[in-house]
Amino acid sequence: MLVRMKRFKLAFICAFLFTSMQSFAQSDSLIIRQMFNQIVSNGLCYSRLDYLSNQIGGRLSGSPEAARAVQYTFDQLKSEGFDSVWLQEVMVPHWVRGEKEKGYIVSNGKKHEVAICALGNSIGTGKSGIKGKVIEVKNFDELKKLGKEKVEGKIVFYNRPMNPLFIRTFEAYSDAVDQRAAGAIEAAKYGAIAVVVRSMASNVDPYPHTGAMRYQDGVRQIPACAISTLHAELLSKQLVQNNDLEFFFKQTCEMLPEALSYNVIAQINGTERPDEIIVVGGHLDAWDNGDGAHDDGSGVVQSMEVLHTFKTLGLKPKRTIRCVLFMNEENGLRGGVTYAKVAKEKSEKHLAAIETDAGGFTPRSFSASANPEVLGRMKQWEPLLKQYGIEEITAGGGGADIGPLKPQGTVLIGYGPDSQRYFDLHHSGEDTFDKVSKRELEFGAATISGLIWLISEYGL
Amino acid sequence: MLVRMKRFKLAFICAFLFTSMQSFAQSDSLIIRQMFNQIVSNGLCYSRLDYLSNQIGGRLSGSPEAARAVQYTFDQLKSEGFDSVWLQEVMVPHWVRGEKEKGYIVSNGKKHEVAICALGNSIGTGKSGIKGKVIEVKNFDELKKLGKEKVEGKIVFYNRPMNPLFIRTFEAYSDAVDQRAAGAIEAAKYGAIAVVVRSMASNVDPYPHTGAMRYQDGVRQIPACAISTLHAELLSKQLVQNNDLEFFFKQTCEMLPEALSYNVIAQINGTERPDEIIVVGGHLDAWDNGDGAHDDGSGVVQSMEVLHTFKTLGLKPKRTIRCVLFMNEENGLRGGVTYAKVAKEKSEKHLAAIETDAGGFTPRSFSASANPEVLGRMKQWEPLLKQYGIEEITAGGGGADIGPLKPQGTVLIGYGPDSQRYFDLHHSGEDTFDKVSKRELEFGAATISGLIWLISEYGL
Repeated sequence: MLVRMKRFKLAFICAFLFTSMQSFAQSDSLIIRQMFNQIVSNGLCYSRLDYLSNQIGGRLSGSPEAARAVQYTFDQLKSEGFDSVWLQEVMVPHWVRGEKEKGYIVSNGKKHEVAICALGNSIGTGKSGIKGKVIEVKNFDELKKLGKEKVEGKIVFYNRPMNPLFIRTFEAYSDAVDQRAAGAIEAAKYGAIAVVVRSMASNVDPYPHTGAMRYQDGVRQIPACAISTLHAELLSKQLVQNNDLEFFFKQTCEMLPEALSYNVIAQINGTERPDEIIVVGGHLDAWDNGDGAHDDGSGVVQSMEVLHTFKTLGLKPKRTIRCVLFMNEENGLRGGVTYAKVAKEKSEKHLAAIETDAGGFTPRSFSASANPEVLGRMKQWEPLLKQYGIEEITAGGGGADIGPLKPQGTVLIGYGPDSQRYFDLHHSGEDTFDKVSKRELEFGAATISGLIWLISEYGL
Repeated sequence: MLVRMKRFKLAFICAFLFTSMQSFAQSDSLIIRQMFNQIVSNGLCYSRLDYLSNQIGGRLSGSPEAARAVQYTFDQLKSEGFDSVWLQEVMVPHWVRGEKEKGYIVSNGKKHEVAICALGNSIGTGKSGIKGKVIEVKNFDELKKLGKEKVEGKIVFYNRPMNPLFIRTFEAYSDAVDQRAAGAIEAAKYGAIAVVVRSMASNVDPYPHTGAMRYQDGVRQIPACAISTLHAELLSKQLVQNNDLEFFFKQTCEMLPEALSYNVIAQINGTERPDEIIVVGGHLDAWDNGDGAHDDGSGVVQSMEVLHTFKTLGLKPKRTIRCVLFMNEENGLRGGVTYAKVAKEKSEKHLAAIETDAGGFTPRSFSASANPEVLGRMKQWEPLLKQYGIEEITAGGGGADIGPLKPQGTVLIGYGPDSQRYFDLHHSGEDTFDKVSKRELEFGAATISGLIWLISEYGL
């Protein structure tokens, strides 16, 4: 009898464990399949991306294109009849590129034109441009060793490539991006007159990649431009042959007074726990040299697609799902900061925030800033998303825009598409609509929708 | 003592099981990492693909380009000093496209030009082209129901799209390709004068996709062309408005007498079991409308890269590794058939054959025609390949060229890159070098090299 009792208890415990482990049901799998079918058969994300990329184009904060993107996405969301759709005011930096930049190498009386572009937030060179001898460095340590004596009056040329040995290109980017972000500050400390930065790119081609740089109070502001990887290699080779060559570039970019812009927000209210909010978002602003199809038009239309999919299939989420299209991720993060500030002021409870800002490529993973217990429960959902390309849900974090929600205890989740192609086109004129695969974009929208369905049903 | 003895035995058994289960060592992981580092830092596959695509281009069996591709790859392999490099004679069909094809819809006196191309192996229409009323069908059942009465004297228009609900595009392709392959035979049975086939493509765009079709003894040969998906939709819409419209197309393609060509083969002899051969291959021939960068230039250069990587790193494989660049996969499979025939005549033992012929996209899987026990052992290698993108090693099969080795008991293995982009460009003018990501191509070469290292070390 005792033995039997023990066996019964064991079976009960096992059953309980099994039930608590299986934090999803058969029906969830069917619902996610419905979402996938809806998106690949009748989804709107690809045609919306077409509009955003080809009818509006690059949409840097403060630009007329950014204003049009706000209006377009607001109108689209409004037309779907979600529970609420609104604009959230955000003051943004307003940097403009000016005329098409020019750059060339002058060596032994010969002029060789190279492809450059101003780095975002940089000052201009003046109409007559800037010209000087060049000192090439790989990093700030080298710069420091050279010191004022060797650097003063020269143009500093940062030429450390993204390291191809990093398997994930985002790690290679993080490893190299200090040159772009802080290169002007460091070079100015030693008296440099300007900086030329090798484009943050994983390939060698003739397209310069822009991106944000910053200045520091108390350090002289000097102009900063990016040079294509192809021409960075050329410049480096020519410097070996002639250390006295000169580099010229002209950019008429400037920072204008701050401008009023908006985050665009829409939500479907939760039926059981409307106070628990799940954010899904990307950023509306995009660099002006391409059309921002991958960065981050894809994230914008995927986020919109999540709400559209719930609505079209008549799915009622238990928790509130909010689509947030952030403004000014690229050169200020004002949208993300403002959003978190307002959320705090209103004492809103943000359960989770998912950002899709790594390109519209084929799905591979989600990474979440959850504690091990929560992450363990999320990992049980992996089998439901695997067939659509999600290999795993890993520990990690989200995107830049949702970062400011972290102090509020929100679980930050990043959508992780395949990263191998991203830095070939990121922030360059090559980031255009034709580089986005319709199916890859849709698979992303489907996996994000699926994850949000699960969080909405089961919490975290 | 007895208890102790039991424990010892148990520990011994556990240790043994563990050892036998762990069919790889720490050093394998390091060697695969070395392979990866070598390929992404100093590999040759991307520059070789550049040459094959941009200096040679489309290389259909029997063409001067195919002959140049044979010579180029042979020279490249020969220059590396492998243990053996040779050409294997293969007689191939020699089909030529002729002039650029023309197609248009004539409806209510208006002429609308559409994008078409001849299907491979098709007869021409004659210089004056062919014109007729159109009957649209989705499949052979519909055609049968219409019967001779409705079909005779008309052009049959096959318009069943690739089904987007298949997650793997290769399944959608298999599901739709009967229209292209056998459509002319079935239509001719009911007296059709020609067939126009909706391109086998996963997207809607203006590029026609060619591919092999066949005729059948005793059934009249009629001309067959592919129409772009965009224009297939247009034609279908116009047929709704005017069922009496006419379609015209002209193609001057023809089948010439068979030509002599070659499989290109190179090998590194095994140090311990040289008689056990591991084949890695792709196909050298490619359709003539694009430059065959994905199909299958990528597979060719990845296969060459495997040998190059072993050689460069000084790795001595225990078993023989043979790179086979097959001729005529696209419209005859003569290379694959000949290779298997010769292997049988020579009583060679082919342990495994790996084909890479699914595009040069980011790695996702390998599929192997192994029995469950062998597959189980292969699956233990998954952790070694995972970081480079291989999610799993599944049951399945290889590629067309290695298929004829099956009766010899060879384990057939297919390299499975991500499939979502492939059928946007497959067999179309869009299959060009610029669509290949250097890193994705290299990741493929690295994972294939890694798998071959493991098979060479541990067998199957």
